[in-house]
Amino acid sequence: MNSVILKFQCPDQKGLVAAITQFVYRNGGNVVNLDQYTDEDRKMFFMRLEWDLKGFRSKPEDLKKVFAAFLKKQKIIAAWELFFSSRRERMAVMVSRFDHCLFDLLYRHQAGELGCDISVILSNHDELRDLAEYFKVPFLCVPVENGKTMRDSERRQLAVLRESRSDFVVLARYMRILPPAFLRAYPWKIINIHHSFLPAFKGAKPYHQAWERGVKIIGATSHFVTEELDQGPIIHQDVVRVSHKDRVDDLVIRGRDIERQVLAEAVKLYLGKRIFVHGNKTYIL
Amino acid sequence: MNSVILKFQCPDQKGLVAAITQFVYRNGGNVVNLDQYTDEDRKMFFMRLEWDLKGFRSKPEDLKKVFAAFLKKQKIIAAWELFFSSRRERMAVMVSRFDHCLFDLLYRHQAGELGCDISVILSNHDELRDLAEYFKVPFLCVPVENGKTMRDSERRQLAVLRESRSDFVVLARYMRILPPAFLRAYPWKIINIHHSFLPAFKGAKPYHQAWERGVKIIGATSHFVTEELDQGPIIHQDVVRVSHKDRVDDLVIRGRDIERQVLAEAVKLYLGKRIFVHGNKTYIL
Amino acid sequence: MNSVILKFQCPDQKGLVAAITQFVYRNGGNVVNLDQYTDEDRKMFFMRLEWDLKGFRSKPEDLKKVFAAFLKKQKIIAAWELFFSSRRERMAVMVSRFDHCLFDLLYRHQAGELGCDISVILSNHDELRDLAEYFKVPFLCVPVENGKTMRDSERRQLAVLRESRSDFVVLARYMRILPPAFLRAYPWKIINIHHSFLPAFKGAKPYHQAWERGVKIIGATSHFVTEELDQGPIIHQDVVRVSHKDRVDDLVIRGRDIERQVLAEAVKLYLGKRIFVHGNKTYIL
Amino acid sequence: MNSVILKFQCPDQKGLVAAITQFVYRNGGNVVNLDQYTDEDRKMFFMRLEWDLKGFRSKPEDLKKVFAAFLKKQKIIAAWELFFSSRRERMAVMVSRFDHCLFDLLYRHQAGELGCDISVILSNHDELRDLAEYFKVPFLCVPVENGKTMRDSERRQLAVLRESRSDFVVLARYMRILPPAFLRAYPWKIINIHHSFLPAFKGAKPYHQAWERGVKIIGATSHFVTEELDQGPIIHQDVVRVSHKDRVDDLVIRGRDIERQVLAEAVKLYLGKRIFVHGNKTYIL
Repeated sequence: MNSVILKFQCPDQKGLVAAITQFVYRNGGNVVNLDQYTDEDRKMFFMRLEWDLKGFRSKPEDLKKVFAAFLKKQKIIAAWELFFSSRRERMAVMVSRFDHCLFDLLYRHQAGELGCDISVILSNHDELRDLAEYFKVPFLCVPVENGKTMRDSERRQLAVLRESRSDFVVLARYMRILPPAFLRAYPWKIINIHHSFLPAFKGAKPYHQAWERGVKIIGATSHFVTEELDQGPIIHQDVVRVSHKDRVDDLVIRGRDIERQVLAEAVKLYLGKRIFVHGNKTYIL
Repeated sequence: MNSVILKFQCPDQKGLVAAITQFVYRNGGNVVNLDQYTDEDRKMFFMRLEWDLKGFRSKPEDLKKVFAAFLKKQKIIAAWELFFSSRRERMAVMVSRFDHCLFDLLYRHQAGELGCDISVILSNHDELRDLAEYFKVPFLCVPVENGKTMRDSERRQLAVLRESRSDFVVLARYMRILPPAFLRAYPWKIINIHHSFLPAFKGAKPYHQAWERGVKIIGATSHFVTEELDQGPIIHQDVVRVSHKDRVDDLVIRGRDIERQVLAEAVKLYLGKRIFVHGNKTYIL
Repeated sequence: MNSVILKFQCPDQKGLVAAITQFVYRNGGNVVNLDQYTDEDRKMFFMRLEWDLKGFRSKPEDLKKVFAAFLKKQKIIAAWELFFSSRRERMAVMVSRFDHCLFDLLYRHQAGELGCDISVILSNHDELRDLAEYFKVPFLCVPVENGKTMRDSERRQLAVLRESRSDFVVLARYMRILPPAFLRAYPWKIINIHHSFLPAFKGAKPYHQAWERGVKIIGATSHFVTEELDQGPIIHQDVVRVSHKDRVDDLVIRGRDIERQVLAEAVKLYLGKRIFVHGNKTYIL
Repeated sequence: MNSVILKFQCPDQKGLVAAITQFVYRNGGNVVNLDQYTDEDRKMFFMRLEWDLKGFRSKPEDLKKVFAAFLKKQKIIAAWELFFSSRRERMAVMVSRFDHCLFDLLYRHQAGELGCDISVILSNHDELRDLAEYFKVPFLCVPVENGKTMRDSERRQLAVLRESRSDFVVLARYMRILPPAFLRAYPWKIINIHHSFLPAFKGAKPYHQAWERGVKIIGATSHFVTEELDQGPIIHQDVVRVSHKDRVDDLVIRGRDIERQVLAEAVKLYLGKRIFVHGNKTYIL
């Protein structure tokens, strides 16, 4: 099916659903999926609307202009985006040395679980090159060192993302902090996996912290990257039961399973255009 | 808020969402929640639409007629119902001797978790009368014995449900099979809890069966009652991990926790008007 | 069966299991259950050993002395306790106004899930008296106010616990901090339920904190009370998935289910003599 | 650490733990881990005992004889096995065309999660050869067709397992039924993964069955292979929540995650010598 997804959010007001679905209907489109949520505490309206483009009167290339004009006429002010099923998104994956999340994403990509292309695997180390080659995905190593060469390296990394026409970035256990320029280039488009059940055990060595504290459940958290470390809007979380029998190494092994699943789920939600951000929270429609 | 919920299902066709949300908008209503799902395998459309009645032009008592006329004019043939927030539903609970599910429902009712009234607790035994009295809920005992008095007893039970103006019936571990007359009187309005993860361990003594088979997880299933035992559309299920250390009695204890939670969740989904039935499946919107 | 449980912990050394099981065997006892764990990081040995007293040569009333003499002879220095199945423990429950955890404990007690007596329900408010009376359990209200009467009130509370011959204390959402005298009187014998997945959301209003942070999973934590608030050794935790659709009130409702289950499980582990504490961690055998 | 694990099971009798731990102690061994369970319904005793061989008086190569003599003298009749940590087991993996379970096992093996060698990947198709080669693991294809060549092919398969000195066999979505000769050659040593929450949805196409029935949770089951299809003792199970939104293909994708985790866990339990079989059940110590 050739369809388009509208992501739409604005302060709540009367008649939004009616107006927009009428816009679709009068132009000959058929609503395939509509998910809508109103946050009554924050008086915010969120909608994800997918319609079949078969028989739709506006050409895809004009739709953005036509819909903007419609909203203007209706005096609706909102944040919105359109995503066409005919265009596959391009995902960049940034890694360091850990391979479990990358492995998992590559496997799922190959198995057809992710409806996207992989634009590049960008690493600050060379260890995972073989893995990328096995899956026939481009791999680029840009070493990054603390010190005066760091800014240059980061500029090269950004250039790689740009030149590979990456639409969004997944940090698959990338072990460095990204500078603000990345956030400006990819607003709400950089997804991280943190190996704890945030906000518990922020920062470094969360499995060690969990072992010390003696928790009975550990977890992983996928979130959008923001300037504050480990503080961005949470996309997805999952947990696994552990016990006193699990030493730190056991927590790491159990955690790997959770990390890769949580990250994969977040990527799927992202690709499905299901994640809305408002304040520091996500709404998953 | 004074609102109304429309449950609506029909074979999929173009423009349904637009038409119905326009109906609401033109009559001065504001959509508060819209959940919609299209089953692409079965080509069926399901929608749960809630709107604020403040400023709505049709009076609640006329709405059914007005909406029917609208659908007729639009040539839309569908199954639909309207539920007004101003009217609390009346729940009958049928029990035998087990008290855990009844306890749980009564506690949740008292705590304000369930937005309904309890019309009657109807039992074929007298053991749970004290419990009902503690919660100040009417209790009636109609003994039912196999044999020639059985039909009479069942007629009396149905009369109790009718006279208590019960809108729907919850079988909170009621240990007998209901005759077809109940199903005709309460179509898709009788909710049962079965103490296994259906379709595993249908029939009697599921915990014994689970112990014999050595499963590592047990569960409970809430479903609508149909003429075929344990075969009705599944509303909700949950599970709990068990081990070889759990003897049958332990499974029963662990199962109680799951049973009561699964049943409570099913009742909440029912009261929220979120359960749609098509074929032998539910769609939870 | 008339049996005894030995809880035993000490720095790891050779031959501990052999020595102690031989002690049992030579005295005519039969090991029914043996659970043992060695923490290799901390070089600590933990053992829970249950044996049948039928045919055992020492009288129960002498066993403590006999076993101590045995250990002395073997030059084994350890922390240990003996619990006889013939003696039911007496549980005090402290509450304020929330009833869900108390309800749950009373229900489970009545249903025979907890093999203990309830010595007293001790509250600083009078609201839950009816509930206690329904279950025919003694209820005492000792109001506690901040200010100069506070110490007196706390002394009266301690006197109640003592006079009711309470063996251990469960804080079933008791909303005040206990002074050190309680901890001295009941070392590792006061169990609290905290309504968050500790260490996330320590302190007050964890559900509000969780809502603000936008987590996708909430939880509850049962732990031993120590002088540091919400920092004691964790006994049990569980979680439940939530979403952006859950407002604070919804989190509270979902949380109640988790709180009561986690607390009940912790009480069962305690009564089963399965919880060992070392450092700030528990070992559940 | 150089250690040995004893797996031991027999009808329950007095003094078993004492006798065996004394045997270890008197020979200079130190118990590192002891897990013991008595099934009171079946009057069966199970024990997994690991001891450090440092300072142990018997040579490893004599231990079997020495322990047998000890049992004879004590008049203890039991089923038992010894496993030396110095000897890595050799795992054969049988596959057809599905790659997700194989991928997962190979990844975990490479990551050091599984303490075993992979003796051979044996397939009836050639598709997964590249994958095996990437991981540098021997791959052999023995085509098997129904008809008169089938018995020959099966004999060749068995020869491959024997010649590769495989200790146990993992069916990682191998899509054929093994003949009895395999079961005789590898008694309780063939582990299968079934893509449903057994005993629900036995036989073919369980995801289709699950979709038809409208269950709200799907699962996977790892079990020992026996002559009755899908009826062997269950080793491990896990589940995942699904909804009406999941079409059969979605169930397959979600199921893959569960299948590979359940199978990996079963393999780890097997390698840890934690699985005991009695009747048609497993006891996991």
